[in-house]
Amino acid sequence: MAGTVRGRAPARGRYPGFVTFPVIGMVGGGQLARMTHEAGIPLGIRFRLLSDTPQDSAAQVAGDVVVGDYRDLETLRAFAHGCDVITFDHEHVPTEHLRALEADGIPVRPGPEALVHAQDKGVMRARLTEIGAPCPRHRIVADPADVAAFAAELAAEDGGEGFPLVLKTVRGGYDGKGVWIVRSAEEAAEPFRAGVPVLAEEKVDFVRELAANVVRSPHGQAVAYPVVESQQVDGVCDTVIAPAPGLDEELALGASELALRIAAELGVVGHLAVELFEVRAADGTPRVLVNELAMRPHNSGHWTQDGAVTSQFANHVRAVLDLPLGDPRPRARWTVMGNVLGGDYPDMYTAYLHCMARDPQLKIHMYGKDVKPGRKVGHVNTYGDDLDDVLARARHAAGYLRGTIQE
Amino acid sequence: MAGTVRGRAPARGRYPGFVTFPVIGMVGGGQLARMTHEAGIPLGIRFRLLSDTPQDSAAQVAGDVVVGDYRDLETLRAFAHGCDVITFDHEHVPTEHLRALEADGIPVRPGPEALVHAQDKGVMRARLTEIGAPCPRHRIVADPADVAAFAAELAAEDGGEGFPLVLKTVRGGYDGKGVWIVRSAEEAAEPFRAGVPVLAEEKVDFVRELAANVVRSPHGQAVAYPVVESQQVDGVCDTVIAPAPGLDEELALGASELALRIAAELGVVGHLAVELFEVRAADGTPRVLVNELAMRPHNSGHWTQDGAVTSQFANHVRAVLDLPLGDPRPRARWTVMGNVLGGDYPDMYTAYLHCMARDPQLKIHMYGKDVKPGRKVGHVNTYGDDLDDVLARARHAAGYLRGTIQE
Repeated sequence: MAGTVRGRAPARGRYPGFVTFPVIGMVGGGQLARMTHEAGIPLGIRFRLLSDTPQDSAAQVAGDVVVGDYRDLETLRAFAHGCDVITFDHEHVPTEHLRALEADGIPVRPGPEALVHAQDKGVMRARLTEIGAPCPRHRIVADPADVAAFAAELAAEDGGEGFPLVLKTVRGGYDGKGVWIVRSAEEAAEPFRAGVPVLAEEKVDFVRELAANVVRSPHGQAVAYPVVESQQVDGVCDTVIAPAPGLDEELALGASELALRIAAELGVVGHLAVELFEVRAADGTPRVLVNELAMRPHNSGHWTQDGAVTSQFANHVRAVLDLPLGDPRPRARWTVMGNVLGGDYPDMYTAYLHCMARDPQLKIHMYGKDVKPGRKVGHVNTYGDDLDDVLARARHAAGYLRGTIQE
Repeated sequence: MAGTVRGRAPARGRYPGFVTFPVIGMVGGGQLARMTHEAGIPLGIRFRLLSDTPQDSAAQVAGDVVVGDYRDLETLRAFAHGCDVITFDHEHVPTEHLRALEADGIPVRPGPEALVHAQDKGVMRARLTEIGAPCPRHRIVADPADVAAFAAELAAEDGGEGFPLVLKTVRGGYDGKGVWIVRSAEEAAEPFRAGVPVLAEEKVDFVRELAANVVRSPHGQAVAYPVVESQQVDGVCDTVIAPAPGLDEELALGASELALRIAAELGVVGHLAVELFEVRAADGTPRVLVNELAMRPHNSGHWTQDGAVTSQFANHVRAVLDLPLGDPRPRARWTVMGNVLGGDYPDMYTAYLHCMARDPQLKIHMYGKDVKPGRKVGHVNTYGDDLDDVLARARHAAGYLRGTIQE
């Protein structure tokens, strides 16, 4: 163990005999934790979970579960005692608590100095701009008058009206929540009501959305997955295609390099998803702008479970333990991930049988969550040589499970 | 659920909300249970474990663990209450207990009438002979004099001496335990000391060992994995190559058909491993003889975790729940599994780092077991187009982890 989770002896006292394999403490019991546990089992890694309830997605399938509130420092401390490293299913743990754990001598990965860029969109934009990463034009705005001023500035640069603009609370948003598209200063009152600072961004006229996923370890080893296309419906990820079809080779390379550079500059440890807009300049030259960062396994990387030599989850585990990283290369020409959202009918099991019978190659990943309309309850992966076929199979299965496709 | 685990409503009362996914009760906490749980997580299946101790391989990673003795019927009954189906990590549960569970209305898969063929080598040989499956010549023997008589009979048929012979206790043996090779009647006293019936078999002069793995569901759907070559060292599986290199196509097809027929005739539900000897007739014609049967996921199928579209563990889960089976086809030209046995040095973690760094494509599966010399503590899978390379990588990793290779 010496030199792997640095500065700490492994928590071997908790297990009998000579086992020296480390314990990962995972904060948050959602599906990302569930799938990280799944990926850690073959690695022989011990997994300890801090979960809101015993019914959470990951808590159903893990052995060492602490039920408690991650917002409470003493709960976090008690949980972290006996763990070799702490990592996360979500970005909501308060920065000061992470600093306190570090002060206690517990490695936190990604660490609070990196994680703040995934927690606070204002900090993220400022830092990305500082390191020269291409971003949409943006400004922290205090009120609707500020929004109008920012719109006027964009209008002066581009011609046109400046609106519509995108407003985001700098903290707390996900899956389209905490995001507003406003067409005038009058429409801009709502985002300010939460009392959280608001970031205004130009509404990017993008060709499509991409994601560049990389994994970085504490000693600086890093791997890049192929850049993927991510298709959103109503602000929620619907389909991911790996690799992004028809993507300009130089642009793909540039996007991966950008993600690796962001990971290094921000000191990220573990999986980093860089969500990108692909845009075309007036002369037709393609380029990318950074939309969002996520410092954990990410929906745009779920395809790697069945489509890559090493999944994002396995590489996240390896990274936070400072183990050598696994090969991120694809195993198939095309892999497609389709998110399974809850539909109106709560029992998915009958639909599930039908999908298995229809497509014996289908890879299903269910999260053990109650079905609620629009809720992410699972995903499917398909792979093969023919993109049309691979896409059609994933879309059929996701639609059939949701109940929007009947045959 | 209706119609899948037949005759029982799903145990949904144990879980909140509308979740109707079934609960598998797994008897035995070894690595097969561990890897079955791992495979069940993406399927959304609830997993309940009956384990000898809380430290058993599977008990470390599962959420719903009952610690108790499977030989005690009341323990089994209490465990099975709330499970939709019972399946096994090993074949040691007494037949009368399985019948009692069935009488209670709990589906047991494989059922006791099938499982007895994997529990009792005498019953297995009698039944296989009855259905015309090719077996080594064999006889139940009562004492060394019986052994001598059987040897004399073989000598009369073949010329030669009849010896050496293989003696096996009909119950309780595994990994070379409960098996003796004797060169004379005088050497044949030991096997009779346990008071268990003894089976004598001719010592087959085989070319190599093969395994034909199939999975069968209650409604009779079945899939066959490619026939593999299994290399043993000191009676313990060392390396598995999928598919078996240079295997005669007709023989491979015949071996798969034989395994499917045995599964159907014996009413197997779940994974069935048919261990085979490949032999050559005097005229050079290759054929197979059945060596052993195992009715559960099997060491000769571990390669499927990384080498097949659907792993043996996922298909075992699907079969015992009567879900449609997944595609058993290989994903790579060659996949090699190398067993990791414990060596003299109890800490494997440092070696583990080295193996990961040396081969980023290596797939490691650790069981969370204490390292003891000769004990199976994990396995590695490698895959690719070049068999020599794939074999060398698996052998290096397995040897390095054990400590028999130093660089």
